Amino acid sequence: MTKRIAVLVSGGGTNLQALIDAQKNGKIVNGEIAAVISTKEGAYALTRAKNAGIADYVLPRKRFDSNRAMTVALVKMLQDLKIDLVVLAGCMVIFTEELAQSYPNAVINVHPALIPSFCGEGFYGLKVHEAALQYGVKLSGATVHFVTAECDGGPIIAQKSVAVLDDDTPESLQKRIMEEAEWKLLPEAVSLFCQDRLAVNGRTVIVKE
Amino acid sequence: MTKRIAVLVSGGGTNLQALIDAQKNGKIVNGEIAAVISTKEGAYALTRAKNAGIADYVLPRKRFDSNRAMTVALVKMLQDLKIDLVVLAGCMVIFTEELAQSYPNAVINVHPALIPSFCGEGFYGLKVHEAALQYGVKLSGATVHFVTAECDGGPIIAQKSVAVLDDDTPESLQKRIMEEAEWKLLPEAVSLFCQDRLAVNGRTVIVKE
Repeated sequence: MTKRIAVLVSGGGTNLQALIDAQKNGKIVNGEIAAVISTKEGAYALTRAKNAGIADYVLPRKRFDSNRAMTVALVKMLQDLKIDLVVLAGCMVIFTEELAQSYPNAVINVHPALIPSFCGEGFYGLKVHEAALQYGVKLSGATVHFVTAECDGGPIIAQKSVAVLDDDTPESLQKRIMEEAEWKLLPEAVSLFCQDRLAVNGRTVIVKE
Repeated sequence: MTKRIAVLVSGGGTNLQALIDAQKNGKIVNGEIAAVISTKEGAYALTRAKNAGIADYVLPRKRFDSNRAMTVALVKMLQDLKIDLVVLAGCMVIFTEELAQSYPNAVINVHPALIPSFCGEGFYGLKVHEAALQYGVKLSGATVHFVTAECDGGPIIAQKSVAVLDDDTPESLQKRIMEEAEWKLLPEAVSLFCQDRLAVNGRTVIVKE
């Protein structure tokens, strides 16, 4: 059966767009984006969803007293929508363990660094790239991984490296990592999931032929 | 003036061989390997040095009461040999801060991972690759960096990624990282140093044209 995908967003939704484009081009095999859920009202990602004819929902963080309360509401919404795969695509809310518990090995996140470098609490958005530049690494990149209760700590599905350039700013590095790594890795990982080709063995993810 | 290079080794000396081969092929511009110093008697790296007509020395760890005493003796030897650049090429002794203090931004180490992943105390030899496989990363690689007082913490000169394969063992990953990354990065970095093309600015290394 075709897998129903929910994409969680908070902002511009460029990773969402990469998924929409991949779907249009037939590159999400056995899956369809069934819902786009934004944690912010008015996020441009919602417009992208409307333009693509995908149902869009808003679940504003400010409506809830805690991340946990919001996570419980999200899980209820995902279950009502009969979602099989949850994709965190630039979603700025840190959901609590109830999400991964309700969707074990079925929540995918993209992190803009080569985990375990520059990940975990405090490493989000531009802060990741600021840290990489401050450290002076010559390679950074992106990691697509399953979400567990541990922040950025779940089994890794795919990683792609991107060169850091001498004149990079956090913004330019962020942009290049999105273009060269995130927008490629994320649709590929989603398509593999939808084909039941991702086997998780402890911390290791194997792509089945 | 041609830079005089000392290569520190402890074992088989495959990184040393990569440097010897690069030198033969004219790829170490403005530098010559003036000495190979082994921390172990009978290391095969010494035979490689002899075969290449390079002066070889033994400075056995067991002759010294402490790493500090050994480091002080090493610095004395390097100064006597008028060494400009010290390369740690699979050297299993952890030298103390006297080495980096005597040769600031003139000691180069190669580490078999993408620093800051899988580096620091306890991460040496096969343990690095065991940790990478246990974590489940899909990319590892090698890092060439200047040595400071902090273990594996100095400014990064170059990094190269290597794919981790599903059937990798620590041994197979170690071998591929050597072949695909270490043997390329290390001679390149040494040649750039010898041409005075590496500028260190804080934690960032810039390659000058």
